[in-house]
Amino acid sequence: MSNNTYHTIVIGAGSGGLTVAVGMANLGKRSAIIEAKDVGGDCTNVGCVPSKTLIHQAEILGASGGPATALDEVRRKRNALRDKETEEFGHVPNLDLIFGRGKLLDAHRVQVSASDGSEQILTAEHIVIATGARARPLNIPGLPAERQLSNESVFEIAQTPQHLAIIGGGVIGMEMAFAFRKLGSRVSMITNADRVMERFIPEVAAALEPSLKAHGIALYTGATAHSYAVDEQVLRIERNAYIESLDGVDYVLVAVGRQKNLENVGLEAAGVKFDMRRGIDIDSYGRSNVPHIYAIGDVTPTSAFTHSANAQGRRVVQRIAFPLLPARSPEPFYPSATFSDPEVATAGMSQEQIAARYHPKLIKRIRIDLPTQTDRGYTDGLSHGFIIVDAIRLSGKILSVTAVGPRVSELISLFTLAIKEGLSLYKLYGVVYPYPTYSSGIGKVADTFLRETLPNVRSELAAYLRYRWAKPQTPSRAGKLTA
Amino acid sequence: MSNNTYHTIVIGAGSGGLTVAVGMANLGKRSAIIEAKDVGGDCTNVGCVPSKTLIHQAEILGASGGPATALDEVRRKRNALRDKETEEFGHVPNLDLIFGRGKLLDAHRVQVSASDGSEQILTAEHIVIATGARARPLNIPGLPAERQLSNESVFEIAQTPQHLAIIGGGVIGMEMAFAFRKLGSRVSMITNADRVMERFIPEVAAALEPSLKAHGIALYTGATAHSYAVDEQVLRIERNAYIESLDGVDYVLVAVGRQKNLENVGLEAAGVKFDMRRGIDIDSYGRSNVPHIYAIGDVTPTSAFTHSANAQGRRVVQRIAFPLLPARSPEPFYPSATFSDPEVATAGMSQEQIAARYHPKLIKRIRIDLPTQTDRGYTDGLSHGFIIVDAIRLSGKILSVTAVGPRVSELISLFTLAIKEGLSLYKLYGVVYPYPTYSSGIGKVADTFLRETLPNVRSELAAYLRYRWAKPQTPSRAGKLTA
Repeated sequence: MSNNTYHTIVIGAGSGGLTVAVGMANLGKRSAIIEAKDVGGDCTNVGCVPSKTLIHQAEILGASGGPATALDEVRRKRNALRDKETEEFGHVPNLDLIFGRGKLLDAHRVQVSASDGSEQILTAEHIVIATGARARPLNIPGLPAERQLSNESVFEIAQTPQHLAIIGGGVIGMEMAFAFRKLGSRVSMITNADRVMERFIPEVAAALEPSLKAHGIALYTGATAHSYAVDEQVLRIERNAYIESLDGVDYVLVAVGRQKNLENVGLEAAGVKFDMRRGIDIDSYGRSNVPHIYAIGDVTPTSAFTHSANAQGRRVVQRIAFPLLPARSPEPFYPSATFSDPEVATAGMSQEQIAARYHPKLIKRIRIDLPTQTDRGYTDGLSHGFIIVDAIRLSGKILSVTAVGPRVSELISLFTLAIKEGLSLYKLYGVVYPYPTYSSGIGKVADTFLRETLPNVRSELAAYLRYRWAKPQTPSRAGKLTA
Repeated sequence: MSNNTYHTIVIGAGSGGLTVAVGMANLGKRSAIIEAKDVGGDCTNVGCVPSKTLIHQAEILGASGGPATALDEVRRKRNALRDKETEEFGHVPNLDLIFGRGKLLDAHRVQVSASDGSEQILTAEHIVIATGARARPLNIPGLPAERQLSNESVFEIAQTPQHLAIIGGGVIGMEMAFAFRKLGSRVSMITNADRVMERFIPEVAAALEPSLKAHGIALYTGATAHSYAVDEQVLRIERNAYIESLDGVDYVLVAVGRQKNLENVGLEAAGVKFDMRRGIDIDSYGRSNVPHIYAIGDVTPTSAFTHSANAQGRRVVQRIAFPLLPARSPEPFYPSATFSDPEVATAGMSQEQIAARYHPKLIKRIRIDLPTQTDRGYTDGLSHGFIIVDAIRLSGKILSVTAVGPRVSELISLFTLAIKEGLSLYKLYGVVYPYPTYSSGIGKVADTFLRETLPNVRSELAAYLRYRWAKPQTPSRAGKLTA
């Protein structure tokens, strides 16, 4: 086997790519991972790690603790982790970490162009595309490049902004809004949607928007960025065909979505099918239309979370290393966690997936309000927060969970486990939850379901039998919804 | 049925007692609940609710925010909840809430002595003893009564102490130490044990003691309170036969354990067996040796937590209301949560229970350190914390979990569910945990178990077969360990 021949080549050393490369190398398969920039990908460098460090610094320092210190600490920890990971992954047996830009020449050959201009061509039996995504840019007339931030550049500024305008009301915008506000910045959030977090059920926005207000973050819904006047530091936004001016805006963070890194990867040369918006089409084990070429993480249509990329990576390792094993389990529904204040976490199917598969009358929704229905919410003086569970009527099978509140990123995994193992709300009823915790709300959800079901078993059974095999009212979008 | 005749009488309107009384009343059974003092019992009045409110106030106010405000807020919330509960439980259909001291005259008659001196005698088919427990007092020579605090009186003081000495290093002492320290009090903790939290595995103390130190809480292990000099405000403690003096101690909180309320309940008259230390002997459904007399909560040998009392209460309702149903499930191992900083949470069996049932070589212990082995610990700059799981070798069956760290009171319920449903570490391996959370440490535990087991399946299987049915090395204490 020549030096340039590998069992598996991974393009992109983010979380998912590293999971595959290290996994294969540990199984004794000679592997290479190619990285154009920094080891650790978005998560370590411009994603979870710096953002969660910033959020933690904002919690412990507040506005008085020195916002510059916070950003310094973010960079220090981020760089230390990056250096450690680069060192560690550079010394994994059977694994070559190669810096440069990887591009498929055909279905088996990858050209690597290093920053010094040198080039080499590698070949492999299996190739994994893990090139990730980047922030989608937005053209705001008059806004100089150095005043426009993305999730990549936001952690590089020397000082926290005087007035940070955030375009976009999604996960990244929400996390940064609370963090910078706590560090003392004036923060304005502008979204063209009619509410924040529009990909979640509307109850999430209903809980978060009062918290934005309580923290002094100005929210402009149904609004778009119009232009920026650099001399006056004024951001003009357009709402209902009127122009409003936001004064003293020194930075504009654009967080209007992500764009998959599909260009210059050589997908066409290798015959890999993809769609510019959806990404590389894959089966539930990450395999593209070319059987030995896989894709994972943000470059695929799957959820854009580090934990999803890692889970996909583990499945790819399983698939490549043990190709004769039957596909044992469908790809899971990935949970989500947003570290806003309060936090948002989800598990299970989306509303669209439920609507495509089940008749609406088969679904029973239980909502528990954490401030009034848990004693922890009472002792902690909580204003907003809930656990909402959509379950199958009568059987109590859990389909979907959305939780908003402190610590919900930790309690959501109980639901992930329950959904994966097919444990119904009857089973969750029997769990003893420590008092007083927010998790005791899970017991309340189960208790409510039982109270509303058991005294009406006859009518619940009739509804179940009528709607269990009834057609859903939303047509299924084939292929997307198999779980 | 005369006015004084009930289906069920409950003595004691704490969490557990209320669960039974309301449960029976909701099933249409005429019930009475007798309370000598305040509705809500320890939890609402002198336990979880005021303590967690104080802990939360300490978190959000800190030393600068006004310690008096914190205690005022504690009392305000406590009283509001008590009033609300008193009102609500006073209006439950089929339920009489009766104030007075209840005492069994025989196995069916209960005498109620009200504070105005009036008396009445009630009879019932079923009687539930839920009289709870109280702080065990300690005689400290020279210490005036108004300077000695218990978990009952600690929330009544006007100002936070200048220097609070806490006798006892258990759950209550630990929670109060961190809360008052954060509110600005100087805090000294004195325990006669060689470590704090001695009922937990030693790793808990190893994680908490550095945190006590980091918070500036002085810890004296192997020490006892010797005497108090009221004029100098000096508490003398004895350690290694030497006397040390703690200056400026204005309050001494005694938290050296609990004493069950077994006196003046008429247990002897009713023929109910009990032990002054262990409490009322019950079967796994709360039934005493007298078949229609039950006991739940702190007055029983079971764990002294609100959630345990509630769970026991639900089981008693099930037992009384559906006596012909077979006992469907053994009494669960109750989880615990201590709201220290960091938090401590446990699920499953105790070390003693494991030792009594299994050969030590059958047990595999997995430890994950949250600061170094979870990215959340890294971004949050965590110093101490872990998840320790004791599982059966090879099978991965989970026996016992101890976790120390932020938010572990929320993540422990996943383990409670897994233990209850018999889900092994293999099943927990397959769960996708949101990144970056402390729960991802659960995935690391499972991953470590698999990595250490799968490459050595042959030797693990041999060990499993050898020790699975081997005698434990600690003799079982009959009856106590059936799960």
